[in-house]
Order: sequence, then C-alpha cells, then structure tokens
Amino acid sequence: MIYFDNAATTKDKPQEVKDAFFYYISEIGVSPGRGSYGLGIEASRMLYQTREKVAMYFGLQEPNVVFTKNSTEAINLFFRGFLKKGDHVVISPYEHNAVLRPLQALREKNLIEYTVVSPEDLGLSGDAFANKYFNENTVLLAMTLASNLTGRIVFSKERCIVAKSKGVATFVDASQGAGKIRLDMLNDGIDYVAFTGHKDLRGLPGVGGLCSKEELKIEPLIQGGTGVHGHEKTNPAIYPDAYESGTMNMPAIWAFGQAVEYSEREHDRCLSIECELVNHLIEGLKNVPYVTIYDMDCDRVSTVGFNVRGYSSNEVVRILDKHGICVRGGMHCAILAHETLGTVNTGVVRVSFCENNTLEEIDELIAIIKTIGDKRCI
Amino acid sequence: MIYFDNAATTKDKPQEVKDAFFYYISEIGVSPGRGSYGLGIEASRMLYQTREKVAMYFGLQEPNVVFTKNSTEAINLFFRGFLKKGDHVVISPYEHNAVLRPLQALREKNLIEYTVVSPEDLGLSGDAFANKYFNENTVLLAMTLASNLTGRIVFSKERCIVAKSKGVATFVDASQGAGKIRLDMLNDGIDYVAFTGHKDLRGLPGVGGLCSKEELKIEPLIQGGTGVHGHEKTNPAIYPDAYESGTMNMPAIWAFGQAVEYSEREHDRCLSIECELVNHLIEGLKNVPYVTIYDMDCDRVSTVGFNVRGYSSNEVVRILDKHGICVRGGMHCAILAHETLGTVNTGVVRVSFCENNTLEEIDELIAIIKTIGDKRCI
Repeated sequence: MIYFDNAATTKDKPQEVKDAFFYYISEIGVSPGRGSYGLGIEASRMLYQTREKVAMYFGLQEPNVVFTKNSTEAINLFFRGFLKKGDHVVISPYEHNAVLRPLQALREKNLIEYTVVSPEDLGLSGDAFANKYFNENTVLLAMTLASNLTGRIVFSKERCIVAKSKGVATFVDASQGAGKIRLDMLNDGIDYVAFTGHKDLRGLPGVGGLCSKEELKIEPLIQGGTGVHGHEKTNPAIYPDAYESGTMNMPAIWAFGQAVEYSEREHDRCLSIECELVNHLIEGLKNVPYVTIYDMDCDRVSTVGFNVRGYSSNEVVRILDKHGICVRGGMHCAILAHETLGTVNTGVVRVSFCENNTLEEIDELIAIIKTIGDKRCI
Repeated sequence: MIYFDNAATTKDKPQEVKDAFFYYISEIGVSPGRGSYGLGIEASRMLYQTREKVAMYFGLQEPNVVFTKNSTEAINLFFRGFLKKGDHVVISPYEHNAVLRPLQALREKNLIEYTVVSPEDLGLSGDAFANKYFNENTVLLAMTLASNLTGRIVFSKERCIVAKSKGVATFVDASQGAGKIRLDMLNDGIDYVAFTGHKDLRGLPGVGGLCSKEELKIEPLIQGGTGVHGHEKTNPAIYPDAYESGTMNMPAIWAFGQAVEYSEREHDRCLSIECELVNHLIEGLKNVPYVTIYDMDCDRVSTVGFNVRGYSSNEVVRILDKHGICVRGGMHCAILAHETLGTVNTGVVRVSFCENNTLEEIDELIAIIKTIGDKRCI
C-alpha cells in the first residue's frame, strides 16, 4: 500500500513516539495535577517538561501552551474566548473549516464580523494589505500556515508584523505545516498559534494545543475539574489549568514531546526528501494533458492538489485506491479554498507526503493518472 | 508501590486494551471519515462498531454516542447545547466540578438557574422529591452516578422515572461508577449519560462521550471539520458528526471498545473482589479512634473517603506516600460534596480500588493510619 494522505494524518509514527506512549502507560499511568503522591508529582513534572519543549519549538520563551484534544478545539477555545461583540476578523481564503465555522457561528449570532481576503491580495505588501482589510473594529488577523488543499504556504511574517504595528492581534492555524515549517512566534509577530500533534509533527492522535505569547486571560471553552483551586465554583483564573479541565491525555502528550524532538532533529533531512518528492510529482504531472495542478508555482509544503479533466476528484481517489494508493478527494473540510480555486463541484485530489514516501511510489501514481486521463478524454 | 487512586484513573490497563491501541496505530493508522480509500473506510467501520458497543453497554438500542476527549467535554457539550435562557436545573449535592462549574458559568451570565438538592432529601420518594425541587422552569435533573469523594451511589432510577413523568429530562454523570454499576438508559429513565473511558471502564486517557436516547439536535460546542458536508459554513446538522469536529482520537477509541468488552466480561469478578476490599477497609477503620468515614452506611462503589482527626487530608496523603501508598487528599474537584460533608477545610482522604488491589495492601494502609492517629492524639 502507498500512503499519500499525510496531510490528514501521518500514518506511521516514529518508534520513539510509540515507545514514549507505552513508557507512560506502563511506568507512570496516573494523571498530572490529581494526586500529591510521588507518582502524581512526576506526572505533573512530565507535563511541564512537555509544555516547555512545545513552547520552545514554536519560538516562545515561556511555556505558554494549553493542551487540547486537537487543533480544532484549540481554535474554538481561542475564538470563543478572545472575540467580543462587535469585533472584526480578517481571514485568508485558504482557511480550513476549523477556522471558518467557529467564526461563521459567531457571525450568525451577530456577535462578530469577518472578511475573507481575496486570493489576489495575498501578494499585497503588508501596508497595502492592512489599508485594504483592516477597519477600526479589526482585532485579529487569522491565517493558516499552509493550505491543507494545495500545500501553498499562506502565512506571511511581513503581514503579521504589520498587523501587530496596527494593533491587530495575529493568529496562525499551524495544523498544516507545523513540523515542516518552523514558526518563531516572538520574531515572526505571531500572538497565537493553534497546532495539532498527529500530522506533520508525527505525534499520536488526541493532542493539539494553543500557544500564546502571553498567558491567556480569556473565558475557558470548557468548565470543570482543574486539579487546583477545587473550592471555586467556576474555573479558577490560573493559567494554563483553567483551560485544561478534565483528565488530560497525558500518555499522548508525553509521546508528543518525543515527536517534537523527532521533528526538530530530523527537520532538514525530511525537508530535503519531501522537496524532492513534491518536485518529482509536479514535474511528472504538469505536462500531462487533462491534469490541472493548483497553486503550482507557490511556495508549499509537501502537499499537491490537482484534478483530472473528466473525473470528479473522488473518482480518481477510487481508481488509485484500486491500485493500492491512498489519496484524498472531495472537500477536505476547506470550502473557502475550493471557492478560491473554483473546485466546489469537483473537489480536489490531494497527494501529501512524509519523508518515508519514495520517488518510485510517485511514479506509480503518475503512470495511473496518465492512463486514466487518456481513457476518459478519448 | 500500592495504588489506591483508581477513582482518579485506573493505572494498569488490561493487556487487550493496550494491544488494541497498538493494533490501530500499526495496522490502521488513519482517521475515520477523512479518506474514501479502503483503509479510511475500515477506520470508519471500526468507529461505528465502537459506537454500537458503547451504546449497548449503556442500554441503548441505537448507536447514539458522541465521542469526546473526556467526560468534562461531554458535560459541557450537553449543558451548553441543551439549556436555554430561563431554564432551571436540579443537581445533587455530590456533583463534581465538571457538572457544577459549567452550570455556575451559565448562571453567572443570567442564562439559567440551578438548585442543589439538600443531602437529607436524597432519601425522599420520587414524587416528594419532584414536588419539592421541580418548578415550572425545571428542564433537567442532573445526578452523578456515584460520588467521586465518598463512593456513595447517588443515581436513583426511581427519581429519574418520576422526573421523566413530570416532563423533566434526566442526565447522569457516569464518570464515577460506569464500569462498576451498569446503567440501562432505556429502562432506567435516563435521557443522557456522560462517561469517561480511563477510570473504571479501564480505557486509555483521551476518550469520553455523551450517550443519548435520541440523536442530539443541539448546538455543537466545537465547530470545525466534520469530514462530511464540507461545503457548509457551520457544522452540518448531521448526527453524530456535527459533535465530533476535528481529528478524533481513534486509536484510543478503538482500544476503548476493548475496554468495554473487558468491563462487561469481568464485571461480576471485579464487583465481588472490590466489595470484599471495601468491606475490609471499612471494617478495619471504622473502630479506629480518630478516624471518620464518610457515607459509611450507603450503597457505594469501591471508593471510601475518610479523615484522621488532627491531620489535614493532604498530611495523611504525604505520610502514606512515604510508605509507598498512593491515595488522594484535598478537594477532589468536588466542592459541593465537601460542603455536604463539612470537609471544606480539611479535604478528604480518598481510597479507591480496582480489582487488582489486595487485602494485604489494605492491611498496610490500616496499620499506618492506626499508628499516625495514635501519635498525633497523644
């Protein structure tokens, strides 16, 4: 089987990540912040150590990381807590539904407004961008790090720094890209980052989080037991505990720390391999009649979106699946990007790599695409 | 080391649960509802199969289970979606902060009211209870299955059935007790159950959920990618997908299915062992001068709460920890129960068993308690 759906989740995790998970459940096994016996304190220490590691990975000096179950929860926590009635948000045309839908739900309650940037304006200078899109109510610029559909890198340091200079906070959804592109929050003008562990960062499912330059002082999304200040009748104003109610997924959090170490250590090797893979795929498909590659000439992570004329994306997925190749078609939970690309009706065939993929696997895919394209178009 | 903090989390998981987790990450590894290739469809099938197993465990005929990261998320999802402005909720005096705090947060926004039942009224007949506590705005009776502090079984089938007959919906927080006491939602008059996987049900952390007699038709707590109807700009009105935005913790969900099988298969054996353990502890402590056992004569799960005169609960925890015995002290995220028991200042020492504990371990604890009680009170 050839697995080309790494943008959905990386299927194979590094051995050290799996080992860390099993170390935790066999040798620790208890929850941090619950028992004041030695093992409970050790669990709390391991949690803190992971927070530090993740914060440093994203360029923070303080361990300002709230762990959630995935990036979607982190995004909802942030938007619901940060945005106030009357606020205006500017978002890119490549945002995932995890960003669009919570904003749309707030808009439908007449609480906030948001503006989607026109695709052609992604090339504007920071000042021209700010002049065009920010108004007196604009409090937040939210951008995905990379498109989950085409791989295009959407985040722009310059836009973030200009936004900050205008008093607009900046948020990056790093669900796609973290692990491939290093963000340096303090130097890149980023106030908030939502991340997920199980994609390019190579962790196990069940861990995401929200990094912030400053400790959060917003309303929690989830109220409940925090392990501290148990006598208070709502979550105590204590960071990060107030945002992590309920039992945490500590084995996976501990394993995620190892995943981050792997990502840091192997970054250059993976980047080099994946660049070669992406170039090989694009070179192989770009001259095939009937194939359209989206955002072909953009800076990208190792994800490529394309369509074969005469086929819906899901037809292509099924054909490739018959040959043992896993790619994804359809909407990819990113309606804005399809509106941008004009692919709402067909969806997009997405191929996304990790460093374990090979040129030979790509050749197999290209050969099939060439064959089916010929047949349908005769 | 002797581990007596199973009410926080069961430390040792059945081998079949760990095996299932590793089977998923090594043989499946992809997310359900994302890819339409064969492996993605297999993942979706495994998710559905687990839903059916969990639903049947709680006495449902339809697989009406929404998976969350823990019971706290499930409770927040339910309260925030179900309750409307002006609603009134009746809760027991033993509710965990996971129930109290979301309700209190809604009350502080002047959205709802709640009433805490007086401890002495837990013995009222269903009708007398309803007459005393329900008013024209009462829409929900929320009760924990068992106290996380004393082990007392708080859920009452009779109260639920009477509540239903008065048009009041019923909700059980089964975080404590599920896995030890079987709930039969259809026959016990229970509309909604929140559960967590990692306690008595013996699953790994990172899985909880909300069971409901009918499919939920409430607003989701978290908006985002649902894997279906990706073109809609808020979560689609599709159950259960609308309530499970973002990547699910599928390896742990699959392992949880095995945990539920273990709990069903081993239920009678575990119950028998744990009854003996609890009786042994209570017999050993009840005549010790200076020891107060709370809710001593109630029906209970295998949890016992006590204090030693002259010591705060956390002093006792530290002494036991020096002898290699893990118990929990303090507030246990359950301020209402402490107000009920008069233990707000001292906290409570909690001992909670699983079927792997032994009488000899309990004897060690009793011996230490007897020694320290004597010393401080001389």
